[in-house]
Amino acid sequence: MDRRSFLRTSALGGSAAAASTLAAPAYAQGKRTLTMVTSWGRGLAGVFDAAQRCADTITAMTDGDLTVEVKAAGELVGAFEVFDAVTSGQADMYHAADYYFTGQHPGYQFFTAAPFGSTAQEMANWYYHDGGMELHDELGQIFGLKSFLAGNTGAQAGGWYRKEINGPEDFQGLKFRMPGMGGQALGKLGASVQNLPGSEVYQALASGALDGTEWIGPWADEKAGFQEITKFYYTAGFHEPAAGLSLATNREVYESLPAGQQKIIEIAAGEAHQWNLAQFLTNNGAALQRLQAAGVKVLEFPDSVWDAFGTAANDTLNEYMDDELFARIRNSLADSTKASSGWLTQGEGAYRSQRDRVLG
Amino acid sequence: MDRRSFLRTSALGGSAAAASTLAAPAYAQGKRTLTMVTSWGRGLAGVFDAAQRCADTITAMTDGDLTVEVKAAGELVGAFEVFDAVTSGQADMYHAADYYFTGQHPGYQFFTAAPFGSTAQEMANWYYHDGGMELHDELGQIFGLKSFLAGNTGAQAGGWYRKEINGPEDFQGLKFRMPGMGGQALGKLGASVQNLPGSEVYQALASGALDGTEWIGPWADEKAGFQEITKFYYTAGFHEPAAGLSLATNREVYESLPAGQQKIIEIAAGEAHQWNLAQFLTNNGAALQRLQAAGVKVLEFPDSVWDAFGTAANDTLNEYMDDELFARIRNSLADSTKASSGWLTQGEGAYRSQRDRVLG
Repeated sequence: MDRRSFLRTSALGGSAAAASTLAAPAYAQGKRTLTMVTSWGRGLAGVFDAAQRCADTITAMTDGDLTVEVKAAGELVGAFEVFDAVTSGQADMYHAADYYFTGQHPGYQFFTAAPFGSTAQEMANWYYHDGGMELHDELGQIFGLKSFLAGNTGAQAGGWYRKEINGPEDFQGLKFRMPGMGGQALGKLGASVQNLPGSEVYQALASGALDGTEWIGPWADEKAGFQEITKFYYTAGFHEPAAGLSLATNREVYESLPAGQQKIIEIAAGEAHQWNLAQFLTNNGAALQRLQAAGVKVLEFPDSVWDAFGTAANDTLNEYMDDELFARIRNSLADSTKASSGWLTQGEGAYRSQRDRVLG
Repeated sequence: MDRRSFLRTSALGGSAAAASTLAAPAYAQGKRTLTMVTSWGRGLAGVFDAAQRCADTITAMTDGDLTVEVKAAGELVGAFEVFDAVTSGQADMYHAADYYFTGQHPGYQFFTAAPFGSTAQEMANWYYHDGGMELHDELGQIFGLKSFLAGNTGAQAGGWYRKEINGPEDFQGLKFRMPGMGGQALGKLGASVQNLPGSEVYQALASGALDGTEWIGPWADEKAGFQEITKFYYTAGFHEPAAGLSLATNREVYESLPAGQQKIIEIAAGEAHQWNLAQFLTNNGAALQRLQAAGVKVLEFPDSVWDAFGTAANDTLNEYMDDELFARIRNSLADSTKASSGWLTQGEGAYRSQRDRVLG
């Protein structure tokens, strides 16, 4: 991913213009089917489930008046083509990780993950009560989308390596899969960073096209099978301290729906955010134990690597700060996180420490 | 609250019997209004908001076909009378903290908070993916209710005291407000524990009927005004490491609704759980800073007190273990939490430590 590819002219002159020239479709009263394209292979653990959850609850809440059909990556368009498919009207909605679309606008990064940024709870605080949802909508208006968070993986694992990482110099020349600005930051450490859809990562790792990869966390990673190829697994990572997934509907389609169905899409997305986060976090613990039992060495990066991650992440984000909306989103999320994280430490954090101490 | 008051005969012979003898009402097609009674004073920060959120989203998602009217505590029935009002059919649904109803069944404790138990995320993992919702429904079937989690305060503060707590002996004779089994545990330390609805606590504290109280956390506590009377505020507490709020609908009413409206109630409740948790956690940080600026001394309990809390909480819960359903719920939540908490520490916890270290 080229960090210079988000030309404002491209963003405003491309997809958005295409959307605005669409004729408003004439929709029949009564039952209607919406097509949801996704960035996920069919059945891909957790992420495809979040898309299906949205589709199922929207369909069920409307008693089928609004039926959502889910297309896996490649069934209608490719994993990274879903944004253009929806802005152009080829599909009605997409489910994806919005940082796949930093080429359209760099501000999309924050609706998946800010490297060295916010945890899932800090992100939810911001999104639902501190301006995040409104900023997501401001981005969506540029491209003719109505976007909502609609899934979250929680803190992603540092990823899979063929050898131990003992210092930042070990990233030099490493062929590694990491999307978005986390990947750009890793590039500053000398890694050769690639972005691939989840469904293509296993093959690239097996063939040697990749030396290593991050994907999501123990449960989804185990299902992807990376432990069959690489044996060093880093738990905590800097690149996605949580990863939000989005449900974005073509704005003309959205606005053509009755108010009740519009609200149903919004609330279904919000519920899927919580449901999906809990799904990942319920399954990760047992999966990590199975991985360890299968001979995977579970590690944490040394402090020197974290220091390098911190500098590289900050430098990467700083390169986009001349974009007014990017800067406003970044500062809004950072300010909100700073304000809410203290109580999380003093309340829940202090409790957890005492619980661990007392219960052993 | 008397911990011996949950006689099975009372539970099965009282409200449930009343509900089962109700004639199935004949409902008109089309628009319908449901009455929601709550345990909350009108506008009570966070908790009333969660009830109103459920009502507003249900009403909006149905385009008003199902309009929910919210009654504050005392407007139709008292704060703790909402359970009987809904099981008897006097009202259609309630929004409350289910541990107010451990007198009906002790298992309700776990759908608000297990003392020395699970955090909000651990609780959500269990509820949505590890059997919690099904157990909530099993309890609801006994009483003719259809129950869903529909709010959460996050980790509650240890509470307000007139003097510092230096050891477990300081609880001897202390008149303290704490509901549910957390309060029973505090009683084992010699406290004189009372349960009062939130709207009555300020007056009891001001009059000296209480020496101290817990309520929720910095934001809601500040709005309640406890800092005007007491100056020692303990942040982390053992009694409610998260506190779930529930939306419970009379089961006959629920089953009389079209499938789409049933699903709308379920998803509205789930979305409100996340929305409300984020609301508390967004507001707590700034409120704590204001409290400190106003002269409140913010403290943590010493280890000796936490040790005593741990023993008392375990002893309290053990007293109910001859109830099969209580034991099943307790073990289910504890097993799930044990399985999911490790990854939360290794993933997000390790990340947060590094973020705090690197960013300072």
